[in-house]
Amino acid sequence: MEDESQILRSWAANARNWIQTIDNEEIPSRKIATNRAIIEAILRHQPATVLDLGCGEGWLTRELISRNIDATGADGTAALVEDARRKGPGKYLVRTYEEIIAGQPLEGEPFGAVAINFGLFGKESAEALLKALKERLAPGGLIFIQTLHPFGLLEQGKAYVSHWETDSWAGLKGEYCEPHQWYYRSIGDWVAMFNRLGLGLRELREPLDPESGKPVSLVLVVG
Amino acid sequence: MEDESQILRSWAANARNWIQTIDNEEIPSRKIATNRAIIEAILRHQPATVLDLGCGEGWLTRELISRNIDATGADGTAALVEDARRKGPGKYLVRTYEEIIAGQPLEGEPFGAVAINFGLFGKESAEALLKALKERLAPGGLIFIQTLHPFGLLEQGKAYVSHWETDSWAGLKGEYCEPHQWYYRSIGDWVAMFNRLGLGLRELREPLDPESGKPVSLVLVVG
Repeated sequence: MEDESQILRSWAANARNWIQTIDNEEIPSRKIATNRAIIEAILRHQPATVLDLGCGEGWLTRELISRNIDATGADGTAALVEDARRKGPGKYLVRTYEEIIAGQPLEGEPFGAVAINFGLFGKESAEALLKALKERLAPGGLIFIQTLHPFGLLEQGKAYVSHWETDSWAGLKGEYCEPHQWYYRSIGDWVAMFNRLGLGLRELREPLDPESGKPVSLVLVVG
Repeated sequence: MEDESQILRSWAANARNWIQTIDNEEIPSRKIATNRAIIEAILRHQPATVLDLGCGEGWLTRELISRNIDATGADGTAALVEDARRKGPGKYLVRTYEEIIAGQPLEGEPFGAVAINFGLFGKESAEALLKALKERLAPGGLIFIQTLHPFGLLEQGKAYVSHWETDSWAGLKGEYCEPHQWYYRSIGDWVAMFNRLGLGLRELREPLDPESGKPVSLVLVVG
């Protein structure tokens, strides 16, 4: 299994930039479609408790709390969790994916749902994380994943094959540095992974850019 | 529920053209990818019996029989079934989707698998057909569907939204006539339909054109 240290280094190095990016709503697709998509996906199922994993500066945790869902934010980057704590009351934990995979308990488990919003970067480590999270779910619990839609590969003229990409934080304002790798999966490979893990695919949603009519993300609900 | 009479009229009118098209291997995507994709999908699961529904002139039924699978072909177009019977021994039935939905029995049911290779055209009628077929499956039985990959919508510059299209048999040699409508589904809408029907998505495969690296079809295995 690949180790996630480079991903953590990249997020630690860019925590301050990222807080600015989110606070100033500088990612158009989040504003026009994807923030609402993850919130609506979760609200449709009305889980009593949600672990917002990879919570960053905590916008989704706060949104869920404001809708009377008992949400806990967790992130491997301490600077982001500190910022989330400053911004509102909520419960927050500093916890890396590797610690969760290794079996470290999470306050509040088992959860009615886990949400991972654009926060699943690995290949084998992502599979190991989902396996570990399945064990932290209450009976009937669900995992909500939002990720890049792989049709983007075709848009970029690339072959439609799962592979590692370099995320250099391109397109974002700010002095971003320290790129990290992330694994871009075809839809078929997402489904194959869920089946290996014994996770049923309850929903697959493809939020659209209202102007272009193209998918801006992929929302997967499994459990 | 929409009626399928126009689809049946179109196939009846074009049966002779279609037999030529298949016999002469005039659809490149079938030759380079999709014929093999449906055969391999079925062989991976080794069902004892298969209903090849929308069998046409019977190429897939014959392929499965040659691999020692007890396959039955069924189609709503009598001229195609007659041609299939001429081409080999196999068991063939003339049966429309509407007859299956209405509960007419199929010789050999329950089946270990049903395969529908580029033969699911309707919207509500397709859902009703899958519901009826679920009842004709042996325990643990599977339905294999091959269809156009909806990324084709984006390639054509269209919005990524399920909708009715007109199939005018464009691009095929021969004097094709009588276009029919078919319902083009996003992947999300396929998944939503399977969940409404209580069918688990066991596999989602996206066979590629080896030259362009683009998906040429979508193979869905449910049960």
